[in-house]
Amino acid sequence: MARLQHLALERALHYYHAITAISQAEKAYVSSAYLGECLQIDATQVRKDMAAFGIRGVPGLGFPVATTLDTLRHALGMDRLIPAILIGVGRLGGALAAFEGFHAYGLDFVALFDVSPSRQGQRIGTLPILPLSELAAAVRQKQVEVAVLAVPSECAQATADEAFNAGVRAVWSFSESVVKAPPGAFVRNEHIAIGFGELAYYLRQ
Amino acid sequence: MARLQHLALERALHYYHAITAISQAEKAYVSSAYLGECLQIDATQVRKDMAAFGIRGVPGLGFPVATTLDTLRHALGMDRLIPAILIGVGRLGGALAAFEGFHAYGLDFVALFDVSPSRQGQRIGTLPILPLSELAAAVRQKQVEVAVLAVPSECAQATADEAFNAGVRAVWSFSESVVKAPPGAFVRNEHIAIGFGELAYYLRQ
Repeated sequence: MARLQHLALERALHYYHAITAISQAEKAYVSSAYLGECLQIDATQVRKDMAAFGIRGVPGLGFPVATTLDTLRHALGMDRLIPAILIGVGRLGGALAAFEGFHAYGLDFVALFDVSPSRQGQRIGTLPILPLSELAAAVRQKQVEVAVLAVPSECAQATADEAFNAGVRAVWSFSESVVKAPPGAFVRNEHIAIGFGELAYYLRQ
Repeated sequence: MARLQHLALERALHYYHAITAISQAEKAYVSSAYLGECLQIDATQVRKDMAAFGIRGVPGLGFPVATTLDTLRHALGMDRLIPAILIGVGRLGGALAAFEGFHAYGLDFVALFDVSPSRQGQRIGTLPILPLSELAAAVRQKQVEVAVLAVPSECAQATADEAFNAGVRAVWSFSESVVKAPPGAFVRNEHIAIGFGELAYYLRQ
């Protein structure tokens, strides 16, 4: 299928998310009305989006959960795990490292790093927290593609550059600063507060 | 000014975010080229968006940081603090409670809650963690408008309902499940993993 436009991709990811939750509740079908309600869009749009993936519902029942998930997972390229590292294991980093919902999206942490000697050697799940001096070797040996950054704003760019130099192709940054990518690489700056700004804007109307 | 469309609002919030970082670096002007690079959009779009807010740049210098921030803050309704509570002070909740970037967006935590007796009585910053039995009274006394939820998926809807019953107008949920709002109220479901799905989709192309 053709490359998805930004909004179509966003909707597809939200369908995938909602249907994953449905599958955990062991339901066999999900309706376009339910998905529309989850995304706050019209059910007609849901059916149109699903049709674009070749997914059709069963009248009176809805979309079959298992095959719909498989089709979306394949179309979105989430049918393989992407080896990733986490740099910065403070409060937020610790939450990200322990978060169980990432696997369904293909995010697979293979190593954790922190500058603080007091955190090094501690474990989150099965992974020990390592010093940054071991970053380059870990990226090479474990074929790491993504670095997730939960470091203070003032060192976010330098940390991202270090990860790019070590060979990662993309950085997902949770710092307040705006991290830039070198040519050919990719950065996603996740600014959590912006989500609140959006909620608050509607609240104030 | 007229109510902003979804994408225009999102861009405005990202401008606000990028210029806040610039102001912390004590710079006096910011160019449309720089903002375009931050948002990965064309500088022409930036100037058009700014013009819609009545913000015009100084040739050769860019937009004046201080007045641009003031104008955006007012237009986005962020010139007042919104009293909010946080429910669920685990790893992620603790990170949200301690996050300093929220104030710039008007989010003001006035109370923290957790079901776990071992967490109750602990403090994050100046705020003690309270039992949920004190929720209704706190919402009333502190005129709380928003509840931020960092609770397990299986209790997210029940916790949101409790907050709505206590009188909050909006819920910002970080659970994996999809929380629904009663009529007249507002929910924003923040699914962090979806951000990775988007990054990974581009990475796979």
